[in-house]
Amino acid sequence: MVLLRGLQPSCTRFNQSLFRNSSRAFSSACPDGKAIVVERHGNPQEVLKLVDVPGRTLKEREICVRMLAAPINPSDINRIEGVYPVGPPVPAVGGNEGVGEVIAVSEGVKNLSVSDWVIPVRAGLGTWQTFMIKEETDWCKVRKDVPIEYAATTFINPCTALRMLEDFVPLNEGDLLVQNGATSIVGQCVIQLAHLRGLRTANIIRERSDFQEVKQRLEGLGASGVFTENEAVSKEIGDLKGAKLGLNCVGGSAATAVMKLLGENGIMVTYGGMSKKPITVSTSAFIFKNIELKGFWLQKWMSHHSPMDLARMTDYLLGLVHEGKLTYQMEKVPFEEFNTALEKSLGKRGSVMKQVLTFA
Amino acid sequence: MVLLRGLQPSCTRFNQSLFRNSSRAFSSACPDGKAIVVERHGNPQEVLKLVDVPGRTLKEREICVRMLAAPINPSDINRIEGVYPVGPPVPAVGGNEGVGEVIAVSEGVKNLSVSDWVIPVRAGLGTWQTFMIKEETDWCKVRKDVPIEYAATTFINPCTALRMLEDFVPLNEGDLLVQNGATSIVGQCVIQLAHLRGLRTANIIRERSDFQEVKQRLEGLGASGVFTENEAVSKEIGDLKGAKLGLNCVGGSAATAVMKLLGENGIMVTYGGMSKKPITVSTSAFIFKNIELKGFWLQKWMSHHSPMDLARMTDYLLGLVHEGKLTYQMEKVPFEEFNTALEKSLGKRGSVMKQVLTFA
Repeated sequence: MVLLRGLQPSCTRFNQSLFRNSSRAFSSACPDGKAIVVERHGNPQEVLKLVDVPGRTLKEREICVRMLAAPINPSDINRIEGVYPVGPPVPAVGGNEGVGEVIAVSEGVKNLSVSDWVIPVRAGLGTWQTFMIKEETDWCKVRKDVPIEYAATTFINPCTALRMLEDFVPLNEGDLLVQNGATSIVGQCVIQLAHLRGLRTANIIRERSDFQEVKQRLEGLGASGVFTENEAVSKEIGDLKGAKLGLNCVGGSAATAVMKLLGENGIMVTYGGMSKKPITVSTSAFIFKNIELKGFWLQKWMSHHSPMDLARMTDYLLGLVHEGKLTYQMEKVPFEEFNTALEKSLGKRGSVMKQVLTFA
Repeated sequence: MVLLRGLQPSCTRFNQSLFRNSSRAFSSACPDGKAIVVERHGNPQEVLKLVDVPGRTLKEREICVRMLAAPINPSDINRIEGVYPVGPPVPAVGGNEGVGEVIAVSEGVKNLSVSDWVIPVRAGLGTWQTFMIKEETDWCKVRKDVPIEYAATTFINPCTALRMLEDFVPLNEGDLLVQNGATSIVGQCVIQLAHLRGLRTANIIRERSDFQEVKQRLEGLGASGVFTENEAVSKEIGDLKGAKLGLNCVGGSAATAVMKLLGENGIMVTYGGMSKKPITVSTSAFIFKNIELKGFWLQKWMSHHSPMDLARMTDYLLGLVHEGKLTYQMEKVPFEEFNTALEKSLGKRGSVMKQVLTFA
């Protein structure tokens, strides 16, 4: 099985048995493992390499985590390409989010125990590997009563959705928010979190052959309305305008559509730019409509908040998952099939669901 | 003398003697006058008309104001063209700012007396006329120890400059702000008000043949640096970057230049769009640099504040004028030469100073 370009001979040992062995509990050592390493910045299909990571005895305060699942996020790709403004120097293990099980703790570890599920409290730790050795403070414990793919993805996308709903403008029951990219995981979370609060959502998605099917699915999550860009700016869309809050992860004309549905004094928060096109705004929107444009970046938010804040958020969000109130589409892919998952994440196979690597 | 297209025969009585007569104090009547009326929306050189306004006895709470001076502002032009979002229905007297002297008060007027200088507290009252009859509450008294052209123009531009410096971000001594359109009256006021507070200003102006001369003049007002757009985005401009506040009255590439000099978490306030081009922003500026874009419109500010707030502002600003700490370039033009002033204001004679009509 050819996993990645630049595969080293030592990687041929890579097989399922490694995962089976890894479920043993070690008291102070971490076993040998495998990692997807970003050798240099560039095309992800050319600069990633699967490498062996030798096991070792834990140092004080360190824990060994056997990874259970880790997604491939757009920002992971940007970091590999070198177009992300921050990140560890390369070579570095890829992946910035995931969930794992504690299988060994060293002396001095106070708040985590073997068998706990944990997620990294910050980006840059490298989650695309079978075992991670990091200090206790790099981790946040999460509940175990949810599917691993949700625990693995609760940080970056659902927390972003929650913060954008909470932190920019006071929203009361019945208030309207508008978003583009509504089929993204953040988009799906926004619909559901807003619905739980009695807010209405106007959702803008791309024109597509299965528009009606997607529309019905989003309405099933609680969307008040689902529109194409053209519909949003031209069609009679009833009372789904005058939004207090707009969320933009696309840019270009899709951002214009969001601003169109904003009401006076409305705020649009940009948290992504999937179209790679800038945002264009008329002078009169600022002066006469008094709209405000801001940005949101979870990494910046985290730099101002404690791991306890993260723990509270993930506990709330995973609680909703457990209760069946928060759901979103993902595709689980075995770690061994990383190349396929990467190809899909790069959009080489059309529109696909979020790819989540699983390690067991 | 042909004043305006569509001049009516009755207008031939219009001459200087009217102004001389008007300096008499009437106790309860306002004399005959003249007004520039916007007959319908359209090209200002085609839809304005000079009309006679018959005098009349004042009703309760009304005062009669003999206008002393009134500027032609860009927003006046926009209102005439019908591209401004608010304004009185036409036909209506043009002009939205100015200063006049109270020459008659009716019964029930408590806070104003004959010989007071007053300015309108809101737009839409029609200041391009020799005498105005309005209720006492439509006016705000101002100090008389300044030239009439400053009293006439203190509301819209200097107040806008002051509010933008005060209301958007806390600024401390040494902090930097960046603005485009720095030769505008707002721009000149920003430089001086910022300088008085110990703030530094980076000022962006158009490329022009007299660049060095203009640069020196703005530096004389307290500008820390004066640049063309190209210099602002490409040249080594020393430490004049990382601004906390940006002010944009141009749009297009000049707005991009302002955003370029903003620091992390910087705020750009748009208060005009002289280039008639929109503002274009990258996604990364919102996410990674965390800039915010907002708008300012004095008319909206006034709707949330009392005439007392306006009185305090104008007293402060005209105090600075009196002390020689606030100065800006204007050209006084007799009301009889309105056509010339209008032509200049429309940019038909190249770059000109603010035109201020004088009535005596």
